[in-house]
Amino acid sequence: MALTDPDRLFPADQGVRRLARGLYERVADLPILSPHGHCDPRWFAEDQRFPNPAELFVVPDHYVFRMLISQGVAPTDLGVPRVDGGETETDPRAIWRRFAERYHLFRGTPSAMWLDHSFEHVFGLTEVLSADTADAYYDHIDAKLAEDAFRPRALFERFRIEALSTTESALDDLQWHRQIRESGWSGRVITTYRPDAVVDPEFEGFAENLDKLAELTGEDCATWDGYLNAHRARRAYFKEVGGATASDHGHPTARTENLSQSDAAALFDTVRSGKATPDQADAFRGQMLTEMAKMSLDDGLTLQIHAGSRRNHNAAVFARHGRDKGFDIPGRTDWVGGLKPLLDAVGMEPDLTIIPFTLDETTYGRELAPMAGAYPVLRLGPPWWFFDSFEGIMRFREATTETAGFYNTAGFNDDTRAFCSIPARHDVARRTDCAYLAGLVATGRLREDDAHRVAHDLTYGLAKDAYGL
Amino acid sequence: MALTDPDRLFPADQGVRRLARGLYERVADLPILSPHGHCDPRWFAEDQRFPNPAELFVVPDHYVFRMLISQGVAPTDLGVPRVDGGETETDPRAIWRRFAERYHLFRGTPSAMWLDHSFEHVFGLTEVLSADTADAYYDHIDAKLAEDAFRPRALFERFRIEALSTTESALDDLQWHRQIRESGWSGRVITTYRPDAVVDPEFEGFAENLDKLAELTGEDCATWDGYLNAHRARRAYFKEVGGATASDHGHPTARTENLSQSDAAALFDTVRSGKATPDQADAFRGQMLTEMAKMSLDDGLTLQIHAGSRRNHNAAVFARHGRDKGFDIPGRTDWVGGLKPLLDAVGMEPDLTIIPFTLDETTYGRELAPMAGAYPVLRLGPPWWFFDSFEGIMRFREATTETAGFYNTAGFNDDTRAFCSIPARHDVARRTDCAYLAGLVATGRLREDDAHRVAHDLTYGLAKDAYGL
Amino acid sequence: MALTDPDRLFPADQGVRRLARGLYERVADLPILSPHGHCDPRWFAEDQRFPNPAELFVVPDHYVFRMLISQGVAPTDLGVPRVDGGETETDPRAIWRRFAERYHLFRGTPSAMWLDHSFEHVFGLTEVLSADTADAYYDHIDAKLAEDAFRPRALFERFRIEALSTTESALDDLQWHRQIRESGWSGRVITTYRPDAVVDPEFEGFAENLDKLAELTGEDCATWDGYLNAHRARRAYFKEVGGATASDHGHPTARTENLSQSDAAALFDTVRSGKATPDQADAFRGQMLTEMAKMSLDDGLTLQIHAGSRRNHNAAVFARHGRDKGFDIPGRTDWVGGLKPLLDAVGMEPDLTIIPFTLDETTYGRELAPMAGAYPVLRLGPPWWFFDSFEGIMRFREATTETAGFYNTAGFNDDTRAFCSIPARHDVARRTDCAYLAGLVATGRLREDDAHRVAHDLTYGLAKDAYGL
Repeated sequence: MALTDPDRLFPADQGVRRLARGLYERVADLPILSPHGHCDPRWFAEDQRFPNPAELFVVPDHYVFRMLISQGVAPTDLGVPRVDGGETETDPRAIWRRFAERYHLFRGTPSAMWLDHSFEHVFGLTEVLSADTADAYYDHIDAKLAEDAFRPRALFERFRIEALSTTESALDDLQWHRQIRESGWSGRVITTYRPDAVVDPEFEGFAENLDKLAELTGEDCATWDGYLNAHRARRAYFKEVGGATASDHGHPTARTENLSQSDAAALFDTVRSGKATPDQADAFRGQMLTEMAKMSLDDGLTLQIHAGSRRNHNAAVFARHGRDKGFDIPGRTDWVGGLKPLLDAVGMEPDLTIIPFTLDETTYGRELAPMAGAYPVLRLGPPWWFFDSFEGIMRFREATTETAGFYNTAGFNDDTRAFCSIPARHDVARRTDCAYLAGLVATGRLREDDAHRVAHDLTYGLAKDAYGL
Repeated sequence: MALTDPDRLFPADQGVRRLARGLYERVADLPILSPHGHCDPRWFAEDQRFPNPAELFVVPDHYVFRMLISQGVAPTDLGVPRVDGGETETDPRAIWRRFAERYHLFRGTPSAMWLDHSFEHVFGLTEVLSADTADAYYDHIDAKLAEDAFRPRALFERFRIEALSTTESALDDLQWHRQIRESGWSGRVITTYRPDAVVDPEFEGFAENLDKLAELTGEDCATWDGYLNAHRARRAYFKEVGGATASDHGHPTARTENLSQSDAAALFDTVRSGKATPDQADAFRGQMLTEMAKMSLDDGLTLQIHAGSRRNHNAAVFARHGRDKGFDIPGRTDWVGGLKPLLDAVGMEPDLTIIPFTLDETTYGRELAPMAGAYPVLRLGPPWWFFDSFEGIMRFREATTETAGFYNTAGFNDDTRAFCSIPARHDVARRTDCAYLAGLVATGRLREDDAHRVAHDLTYGLAKDAYGL
Repeated sequence: MALTDPDRLFPADQGVRRLARGLYERVADLPILSPHGHCDPRWFAEDQRFPNPAELFVVPDHYVFRMLISQGVAPTDLGVPRVDGGETETDPRAIWRRFAERYHLFRGTPSAMWLDHSFEHVFGLTEVLSADTADAYYDHIDAKLAEDAFRPRALFERFRIEALSTTESALDDLQWHRQIRESGWSGRVITTYRPDAVVDPEFEGFAENLDKLAELTGEDCATWDGYLNAHRARRAYFKEVGGATASDHGHPTARTENLSQSDAAALFDTVRSGKATPDQADAFRGQMLTEMAKMSLDDGLTLQIHAGSRRNHNAAVFARHGRDKGFDIPGRTDWVGGLKPLLDAVGMEPDLTIIPFTLDETTYGRELAPMAGAYPVLRLGPPWWFFDSFEGIMRFREATTETAGFYNTAGFNDDTRAFCSIPARHDVARRTDCAYLAGLVATGRLREDDAHRVAHDLTYGLAKDAYGL
């Protein structure tokens, strides 16, 4: 018995399925490039065992706990930490049981596919998780985690990860990345420059964050020029110490600005004063995307823009539990108007790469593919977050390929905090892409030999190129 | 010869078709729960015969007559009543012939499938409707309608309806519901509390409606507190006399507000004065959704929100024929911003159910599924109005399941004014859901035994639970 | 060996494929109606040979050169003309080689399918275009172009074009159309009245354009009445001299207005003064759509509205190379609010046809199909520009048929500047429609005999009717 079907995600029609399987077989074992995600570099620096099944699969994964919350489980019953340090469940087995009893909630979701894949292919489990099997699962996984073969570095190697990017705040000292490099371990774990805390005037502690930035760099962050220099210094540090090849920016909108330097300096003064209106805050974030792109012209970092999440949608959950707790809801995003100032400034540059990620699928065909099919700087990021799934990837391909082709896209990102889901997520992407390509071949839209080339590029070449890996 | 294909809506691939058929066979004959719709309770109170084929199938069904109008038939030639009481076609056979001659206009539409299903499975007809068969159809149906077996209660029982909710204005005296109950008939026909006429400042006769509300309840509807008490009284009346388990709200936007009681009282004064701006009118409707939700915490009614229809789009048609004449056109709807005040107020309540219905399919995956996959109060309403169809249901499942799963949805609603279409509509939903589930099974995304459980829940369990039936 | 699969675009399932092939075989050879496009009438007036392969396939086709630009080829390396008359590549073989080397960029795109179709079925080529075959291709096509059988009129006849509409500015003298008619050639090439240059206050040279309009018509275009009369005169000229049966309007939004004549006259004065705000300019364009519709009530021209393109998105490319250079990006479009004034004015007219084209696919099911399924004047235009493709047409049918049926749509438009792609594009539309219809038949949603009738109407009857051809 198996938890996963060996032909999963391939088209049901037998002829197309054979085509898909044939394509997949040649990319299934390619190394994993994970150029954007949220794994903790400390895992690989210290290489300690993962503490227990609940802290591996439930507590850090907002995909999992938000679903349980949506059916009435209290966040504290799942061990979600409280901002005030108040009580939350500390018994990992109790958390695990609550999860296992409700595993049917995940039917038909990618989470179920990722989890089943991890349970079976990482831990060797073959029975379905349920209330009945909860304890056996817990004991089995916990025992495995005690083995050396299940420590982070061993799993990294077993997963055939060629490169893994984590994401650190601009204020991070990159201690763990430094430690990884100094350890002599051959695994390639690199950082990404994520300056939201010092770019977004609405970020918690923005003023203090600027002070820290000044302190870290020795630049005068009370002036626009000093502030920009501080970014340049941190970017250089991230490249040198953390091996960064990209920056990343999480903004509520896709707005960009290309103000004169004097207007930008004036806006920076307003923002620093703490008196910026929401519109000015948004304008400042937008100006900083253009500034970052200009710095990329010098230092070669690829620019990633993750736009469109209305973060912390529920006031009470945010007050009690803080950020990243499953209550970030997408909204409409205007890419065509938003990116115009940025693209007027740098859109035709031959050596710059900008990767937009959207949570508004309506923009795939209407805005992003037409722009990526014209501007040399743009490579479309893969489906993100709620759309990193079979249907999501299929809709992305169907909506973008006809206009932008394959070569204006950037390969796959797993974007995960759940380490064990990395092979599962890349496998879903490879299978779905092969299913899509097989459909093109079967309907005379792509030659089979070309489909093999494209499958390889989608799996490996495009990510390597877009991120300069 | 048959009008309907026994394997209709099942996937074409033979293997997947077998799976779909297997799933469908076990839910096809489950009783019908119809928790939201617009049937006339008078039918079941009086149990008189339906007058004629035109008044059964054409005149009350805006799906049907709007299509005929779109190809140049005048509304008055279809018997659509005039506001001024002016002339309109009164010969039902003439109306029927105009419909029959143009039956080809419905090719490929769900209306054709519903109509053919009713013609065949309710009335035993097997030839295609056309100009040639118009009179034979008319005579056959008219003769059947004269039989006792085709009276409303007999059809209700033949259709295996376990519960049918109608929708009444807050000002309705529920005479017919009272009569149904007093008749001793066992059929369960219940009402729904629909207060648009006394909640929407832009509703025709709003001021007079408030006077009637005051009169009906003995509350002082010139004050905010009295007005709220009047709602409480009517809700209690709808529960007691009409068996209501839900309220329903038809709003042009998804806006909600959570004002302080003093601000709400001030807004109510403005609204009562007849001087509210469109923005204030929208704010008031939005505030009332939050008030209704708070009342639901006390009385347990499920809250339905039908948002996003731009009603009465054509000024001339509205002036001549009034509401609900096929000229209600959907528009963009912002659920993520719109529901935030409501969800900040009551979103984490364990015992409240809120069911949103949208006409903006772009919000399925981007806004509604992410919210329903986090907030305990939300259960997604099924595809509504233009989207209550094979493609519409399939898109709904494909866009919501991966994020919200199945258990954050609310089963099926037929939402119809066309009584004979009820079995047809539920059959379409059951077949489409089974087709979707079969696709998941065939591609390794759902285990077959789980698919059977889900099919049962989608057909029966989820609606029963979401509406407290 | 062949470049194109004889069963391309038909469903993979063998049973459905047989149905699709059966439908296609009966429409494949119907004559082509091309009621909207951008071919140059001079080709047919002079009937000179096409100059060379690059000027036939690359230089005029923004689908092709934007994709090459998106991967870093400079526009001037592709012979794209410069506004300042500066240097651009003049060697057609060099342009052709740059194109051929990058032909892999088009994998999976409709451009590849159109190009392969033209290469094989127009020119008899059977090897795949690549760097290796670039010169052989060039020589082969160039030699063919020298033959009489490859001159414009011969190809027109070989393509079985029954009618081809070009699009001319309201200021055009229709010299080539006059010459075609005077030549005695039997090919039906007609014009379309496109008055953007004298309707859009933001068009380059708007004031001078109004002067030219006055000069051409002898009307006083400094007054609103004179200006309207000038339009009437040009429309009559386009009908008489160019055989026009339609007007066409390319607007950034779908806004319409129905102002009083005095307000319209005042707005015209503002617009003429060159001081109109962007909002006033948009209002004026919107008012002119209603004026054009009213003129159509008199002269019978069908009104086409192409709304939603944000033209000339990149400032530098526009400054250097001008309009229509692949940097026109769609944006969100509000049809339900936008068309209301127009539809309140003329929406119920029985003898007027208005054809909307959208670049915002979200409006298919949400706005356009519900409106077309109610208003007699509306016939939905086929998928436009980025969506004139297999997936685009399939999405259009899936999103519109259930609400608007087939008979509220307007058949197919190729809308092309690339003459040789006309048979390829119509073939894609016919195959895709047949694939869609076959799916309906296979799933019991349409009877097979009805599917044959619908296939014929989609291919021929609906366009003929909507454009009065």
